[in-house]
Amino acid sequence: MTTTPETPSAAQTTAPKYVYLFGGGHADGSAEMRNLLGGKGAGLAEMTNLGVPVPPGFTITTEVCTAFYQHGRQYPSGLEEQVREGVRFVEKQVDRRFGDPERPLLVSVRSGARVSMPGMMDTVLNLGLNDEVAAGLARESGDERFAYDSYRRFVSMYGDVVLGLKGEGKEADPFEAILEAKKKSLGVELDTELPPSALKELVAEFKAEIWKRKEVRFPEDPWQQLWGAVGAVFGSWENPRAVTYRRMYEIPNDWGTAVTVQAMVFGNLGDDCATGVGFTRDPSTGAKRFYGEYLVNAQGEDVVAGIRTPQPVTKEAKNDAGHISLEEAMPGAFADLTRVYQSLENHYRDMQDIEFTIQKGKLWLLQTRAGKRTAKAMVKVAVDLLREGAISTEEAIMRIEPDKLDELLHPTFDKSAAKDVIAVGLPASPGAAVGKVVFSAEDAVRRADTGEQCVLVRIETSPEDIHGMKAAAGILTARGGMTSHAAVVARGMGRCCVAGCGALQVDYAAGLLTVQVDGREVIVREGDTISIDGSTGEVMLGSVPVAPGQLDEDFDTLMSWVDAVRRLKVRTNADTPNDAAVGRKFGAEGIGLCRTEHMFFDPDRILTVREMILAEDETGRREALAKILPMQRSDFEGIFRAMDGLPVTIRLLDPPLHEFLPHTEEEIEEVARDLGISATDVIQHRQAREEFNPMLGHRGCRLGVTYPEIYETQVRAIMEAACNLAHEGVKVFPEIMIPIVGVEEELKRMRDLTVDAAEAVIAERGSRVEYSVGTMIELPRACIIADDIARHADFFSFGTNDLTQTTYGISRDDSSHFLPSYIDKGVIDVDPFVKLDQEGVGELMRIGVAKGRSVQPNLKIGICGEHGGEPSSVEFCHREGLNYVSCSPYRVPIARVAAAQAVLRDKVEASRRSE
Amino acid sequence: MTTTPETPSAAQTTAPKYVYLFGGGHADGSAEMRNLLGGKGAGLAEMTNLGVPVPPGFTITTEVCTAFYQHGRQYPSGLEEQVREGVRFVEKQVDRRFGDPERPLLVSVRSGARVSMPGMMDTVLNLGLNDEVAAGLARESGDERFAYDSYRRFVSMYGDVVLGLKGEGKEADPFEAILEAKKKSLGVELDTELPPSALKELVAEFKAEIWKRKEVRFPEDPWQQLWGAVGAVFGSWENPRAVTYRRMYEIPNDWGTAVTVQAMVFGNLGDDCATGVGFTRDPSTGAKRFYGEYLVNAQGEDVVAGIRTPQPVTKEAKNDAGHISLEEAMPGAFADLTRVYQSLENHYRDMQDIEFTIQKGKLWLLQTRAGKRTAKAMVKVAVDLLREGAISTEEAIMRIEPDKLDELLHPTFDKSAAKDVIAVGLPASPGAAVGKVVFSAEDAVRRADTGEQCVLVRIETSPEDIHGMKAAAGILTARGGMTSHAAVVARGMGRCCVAGCGALQVDYAAGLLTVQVDGREVIVREGDTISIDGSTGEVMLGSVPVAPGQLDEDFDTLMSWVDAVRRLKVRTNADTPNDAAVGRKFGAEGIGLCRTEHMFFDPDRILTVREMILAEDETGRREALAKILPMQRSDFEGIFRAMDGLPVTIRLLDPPLHEFLPHTEEEIEEVARDLGISATDVIQHRQAREEFNPMLGHRGCRLGVTYPEIYETQVRAIMEAACNLAHEGVKVFPEIMIPIVGVEEELKRMRDLTVDAAEAVIAERGSRVEYSVGTMIELPRACIIADDIARHADFFSFGTNDLTQTTYGISRDDSSHFLPSYIDKGVIDVDPFVKLDQEGVGELMRIGVAKGRSVQPNLKIGICGEHGGEPSSVEFCHREGLNYVSCSPYRVPIARVAAAQAVLRDKVEASRRSE
Repeated sequence: MTTTPETPSAAQTTAPKYVYLFGGGHADGSAEMRNLLGGKGAGLAEMTNLGVPVPPGFTITTEVCTAFYQHGRQYPSGLEEQVREGVRFVEKQVDRRFGDPERPLLVSVRSGARVSMPGMMDTVLNLGLNDEVAAGLARESGDERFAYDSYRRFVSMYGDVVLGLKGEGKEADPFEAILEAKKKSLGVELDTELPPSALKELVAEFKAEIWKRKEVRFPEDPWQQLWGAVGAVFGSWENPRAVTYRRMYEIPNDWGTAVTVQAMVFGNLGDDCATGVGFTRDPSTGAKRFYGEYLVNAQGEDVVAGIRTPQPVTKEAKNDAGHISLEEAMPGAFADLTRVYQSLENHYRDMQDIEFTIQKGKLWLLQTRAGKRTAKAMVKVAVDLLREGAISTEEAIMRIEPDKLDELLHPTFDKSAAKDVIAVGLPASPGAAVGKVVFSAEDAVRRADTGEQCVLVRIETSPEDIHGMKAAAGILTARGGMTSHAAVVARGMGRCCVAGCGALQVDYAAGLLTVQVDGREVIVREGDTISIDGSTGEVMLGSVPVAPGQLDEDFDTLMSWVDAVRRLKVRTNADTPNDAAVGRKFGAEGIGLCRTEHMFFDPDRILTVREMILAEDETGRREALAKILPMQRSDFEGIFRAMDGLPVTIRLLDPPLHEFLPHTEEEIEEVARDLGISATDVIQHRQAREEFNPMLGHRGCRLGVTYPEIYETQVRAIMEAACNLAHEGVKVFPEIMIPIVGVEEELKRMRDLTVDAAEAVIAERGSRVEYSVGTMIELPRACIIADDIARHADFFSFGTNDLTQTTYGISRDDSSHFLPSYIDKGVIDVDPFVKLDQEGVGELMRIGVAKGRSVQPNLKIGICGEHGGEPSSVEFCHREGLNYVSCSPYRVPIARVAAAQAVLRDKVEASRRSE
Repeated sequence: MTTTPETPSAAQTTAPKYVYLFGGGHADGSAEMRNLLGGKGAGLAEMTNLGVPVPPGFTITTEVCTAFYQHGRQYPSGLEEQVREGVRFVEKQVDRRFGDPERPLLVSVRSGARVSMPGMMDTVLNLGLNDEVAAGLARESGDERFAYDSYRRFVSMYGDVVLGLKGEGKEADPFEAILEAKKKSLGVELDTELPPSALKELVAEFKAEIWKRKEVRFPEDPWQQLWGAVGAVFGSWENPRAVTYRRMYEIPNDWGTAVTVQAMVFGNLGDDCATGVGFTRDPSTGAKRFYGEYLVNAQGEDVVAGIRTPQPVTKEAKNDAGHISLEEAMPGAFADLTRVYQSLENHYRDMQDIEFTIQKGKLWLLQTRAGKRTAKAMVKVAVDLLREGAISTEEAIMRIEPDKLDELLHPTFDKSAAKDVIAVGLPASPGAAVGKVVFSAEDAVRRADTGEQCVLVRIETSPEDIHGMKAAAGILTARGGMTSHAAVVARGMGRCCVAGCGALQVDYAAGLLTVQVDGREVIVREGDTISIDGSTGEVMLGSVPVAPGQLDEDFDTLMSWVDAVRRLKVRTNADTPNDAAVGRKFGAEGIGLCRTEHMFFDPDRILTVREMILAEDETGRREALAKILPMQRSDFEGIFRAMDGLPVTIRLLDPPLHEFLPHTEEEIEEVARDLGISATDVIQHRQAREEFNPMLGHRGCRLGVTYPEIYETQVRAIMEAACNLAHEGVKVFPEIMIPIVGVEEELKRMRDLTVDAAEAVIAERGSRVEYSVGTMIELPRACIIADDIARHADFFSFGTNDLTQTTYGISRDDSSHFLPSYIDKGVIDVDPFVKLDQEGVGELMRIGVAKGRSVQPNLKIGICGEHGGEPSSVEFCHREGLNYVSCSPYRVPIARVAAAQAVLRDKVEASRRSE
């Protein structure tokens, strides 16, 4: 696990600076050195320089961590001497000596990465104790209980963190077991009731247990303890939970952690001592008031452990008459704390999360960092700080985590509510839904009609389920990834969705789902209530309380600043007037993708669509299409009306036709009866059209080329709708988009067809409607020959879902078979269907943009894949000179913020380069 | 259809040269001007310059054709005057005048493109006749019958070609109908029996018919006739059969045709006249002897029309005592012909196809061009001409059409045999097969075991059919394209295959197939005999006679020259020792792709493979793999032995595992019984693994990453086999190839895994075997990040099948739904799965090569997709600096020739540039 440092060599005098000291009003480091010293180390250094009372100490840099892992867990030479000097510095500052029983120096050893990874890595407190030192500490403090309580805590912490002593399998923590046995034998309930003698015995018993289990002796030498702890903290950078955390938050492995060694101060030395944590503003609402908790006569870990109930720091926050606030209990220390937290917030110009200890009435700060906050608080704090003159508009914008805005837009579960999680799937579309389980779209519609809330559970969804998805409060699928049909459609509707929840065994026939939870089988039947969290992927039994999403004035204010800064336009993907209206409400400047196929699945018209597909020849197809035309026209009228004054990009039919054909025997019979043909005919037709890989099949413009009458009808419906509305005075800007173009001639023909059909309508109606004709760029070949394609396109729209599929050769619907394990194993960092792969897919996009603009320098280029609402992808689009991004309605605000941040990052980059 | 030329303008004096004269021993043009004058015009010019007797004339250039189409079928200004000058020149040469009844000049107007398009475009003979001129010609020739026979031929030809008068629908040719009626009314059988008066009447009746049907008057003015004919010939460039022909042979549309106007000579002026065609060598065998036919007292069209039986030109060729050879009938003209044809062959240094007319004993040449020939003749002529000193080795190599070699390697149908074609599919794997229809692999094996030849008919094949495909003489499928499973496997085996024959309705249950032929339903039952032609795609009822393929000494000689020239190595794709041996026999220099999955389908081991897949966990999988290991090892031993001394690239398992699972209820039951699990388990397992788009699914190295034990076992089998054989003294060079890499980390891990497993075997065996580890480049992303990938690869092999699929977003198995109609409609010129798409897929390959070599300058790069045996794709690979191509065994000779030709084209290109 760990190694002792190399013997100092002659080279040590020239060794780089590995250790940064702080204490006595001066620190080697500062807040800017967060990459080198970690967040904690940089914060302690900065506070020291600010004159805030901080126990002295030193920080071993993240570079040591990196070197440690690069050289087979060996420390760089020169480190040992620098650490010794560091300890000497601390000894001098506090006038105590490490390992000296007379006036012993105890230290804490803590991790600290560039970004906070709360609870992920290890900490050792009270280091420096051994039998002799503990006896000395008892003498010096006159508090034997304090000394041996610290000692037993240290030994168990050291045994756990450094020596790796943990319970095997389901066995309880061995130290905890010994402690429990001790309490039982003495007939006491609380740790605090144990007499010093018992604590002393515990120390010996802990040490014996370590020997028994690990065959190592607990080190009595404080220096050996120190190196052991330092090694363990560095080692904890690679512990499984830290690795998982980094993967989840995309923190690079090579950043490493720093280690801070700091003189202990004690909040457990009596009733004039305390320990606490606090936020300089309310992290939940953002309100400008201190929000904190503390415990009298305790060490930091007690606050977290929850054995005693912490008390509020401020009088204002008291909600229980029995509480005593710090403000009341220690007014002097509280005044110090107020001064300090205000100066820290002023200094950092952001809400701070602080840790403090009061030792014998004196306040010590142990940590400061930007406080984690809810989305609501994030917005309010940013807006308030700007109004207070603390930060600029640009800083306020940069303070927003775009993804977090989701919380404001969707309902969320009450975070404090109890929940019985039975499975976790992919958080496919945010929000919270509670409802009765149904297993078919029809049941969802039926229940919704009677006013019941329901959750539609499907193995996977298909376009035929759309009406059921609309009717349901939430959608849960057992298969499919973040861009599966269920996920894409749900996001579009703003409907909560958990997808690809592989643990679920869905049995449609029996009307139930089964899931194994910790070895027990849980069965959920139709009509049972469940709750699903589209932001976490959790599936819970029963009804969990929900809080609605809400946008406030602060949000509007912030977004107005955002819009003034960004250059990239933001559109929405919307297939219905309702989606369009929602997108517009969230600030969409047009529709970037209106899919026409979902309109085909409407129960009122699917039969006509099937009639068209099953027709023997073009004449038969045209007859059916003539019936579809007025329906499509009214669809488009609704959408154009909702987007009055804004452009609407409509994609002509994309999916392979067999997707529209019936699947079940019952449906087949029904269709055959309705169309007056035999079921065998229907089946044969379907078999003839079946495809091995429909994603790579007869779809997109390939349909338009082989059945031009379909696209002609769609164009006619679009243009008739446009002319009708133009006549009413509505401003319409239809942009007709041809999908799946891979060959120049495809677009050339489809453009000609579109223009012919559109001009015919214009000539008939006599009203001049401006329209344009463009194409999706969603195949690698389209990127490669984008110059040829640009000759026939008024605009490009990157379809990054399909482009990612073909570039990687990964079907998004099948990716759940291996992508999750790829991410687990670290083969890839992030699902490329969620975050645009800038290296591969992005490079093809760069080629596409460059080639397209080489022919048409002002070519309008957008993106309409799912990535259009993902912040890093939006930034990429900005950087590559795209004109707009388009995303599902509920991601529009996120894209707007990301687009503004991209501009601001550009500015920073430019000013850095000009320096 | 046609237009009159513009009025000459002031600009005409500066007009470019549109008209090239020939006659009187001198021509403006020459053989080098084929692009400008067309093959025919260039040949006539060249012959004129050579002093060969050629009737004088002139050629209107292909540039006029191009301009004609570019400017809405208008001729360029200046053309009319140049044509007039041309006619004046011809008049002077033959001392006759166009339109002059006294000594009338008649001309022929013929098409002539750069490359011969036999019968595709139009010709008008005897132009210049009207009532007055015909009467004059009768007087002058003293042969009224000749004059009016020529006239009626001209009117009907002009009516057809220029005025577009043809029978409607199924109606017979209207001129033919009038002619038949005339003969009937006169009670005669043959055209030649019609008296001059009847011929005269026919002329009038033809003209009346033209007026009746087209409401245009037959033009009496010879100049109007001439422009009409010229326009019609230019117009015929765009007639549907010419367009189809160009598409078939990939002749660019913008090449255009030239038009040659030439003085008529008459083979029908009496018994001292004749017309004939001939080849300077035997076009069937290549033997050095003149091969021709002629007719006394006839015009050229009579030879083709087949009304009279042509006679052999040479005495030697007589095979019927009744025949009189030209050699005997007209010894003087024959001597002239012999002199001329020899001088033409010497001049062109290639076998010539000539047309000649003898008018009153004088020989006239009307055409010379390189003669079409069989593959056997192609090789023999090239080798003979070199031996005769006529051409160089390089020229001999360039004379080979690589694709044509297929004829030599596979059996072919007797071209003269009658055949009852009931359907045409894709010519997926060349060869000829005759056998009894079977509908299952099992039946194929059973019949083969009893010594019967059979043709395996499947809707589509799957890897489970392999043993049946091996047993069958040929394979016929109703679905799938040129690179479908059936096609790929059949080519690998050298088994004849017709794929994607969509007209077939296959009914497995009833054991029959149905096909509509001209409205009648043909039913073929199991056991009926059919013949399939893998080179044309034809499916025929009954048994068509077959000639075996054969390689001769000339072939070996030629290939030895080829091998001395080429730089690109040629390997074979082979999965079995037998395939490997065939490839090696055909000159393969190693195996470029050995697929391991086909070994998994062997009936002896599929159960163990299924056991592995159905195992609950890694332990279960390893148990099954331990049983597979010795089987795979012995596979590899066989292959290594066959390739002693040559490298063998083995691809680790590629297809998704569900492909190996049973499909039918019966099989599922069997597997469940054999493995002692429930059928439900098997079905659930299969469902859990099912994929929407298996091509983009859990396959290739994705299997290796998730189930490392599978790849480990395969590497172990390879290395144990290699060590065993090395011990025997066999030289083994295993190259282990990781498929479907798209992410750097995938290859890094799989390489580590491979090296670890390989080194473990080497350590165990103590024998040092050199091996290398490389990757397929078959995803667009792999090309884009080829630099990163190259850091972990000893070699790249482009898998252009998959790369084409992902670049285009087209599944090759589904492409038959629309690619054929794409080609029909001219959206694309050629199936990209057959011929590498250099613009799109090729550009990605260029990026891959450049990036790969930027990291490893000497990186070995090959190609192992189906394109590796397609000549233009091989040339591309040469040009892009690849090290080798790999193709199915039977395409190895083709690839070798193509690789040599690529070098020679480079040389020509280089010397052109240095000029």
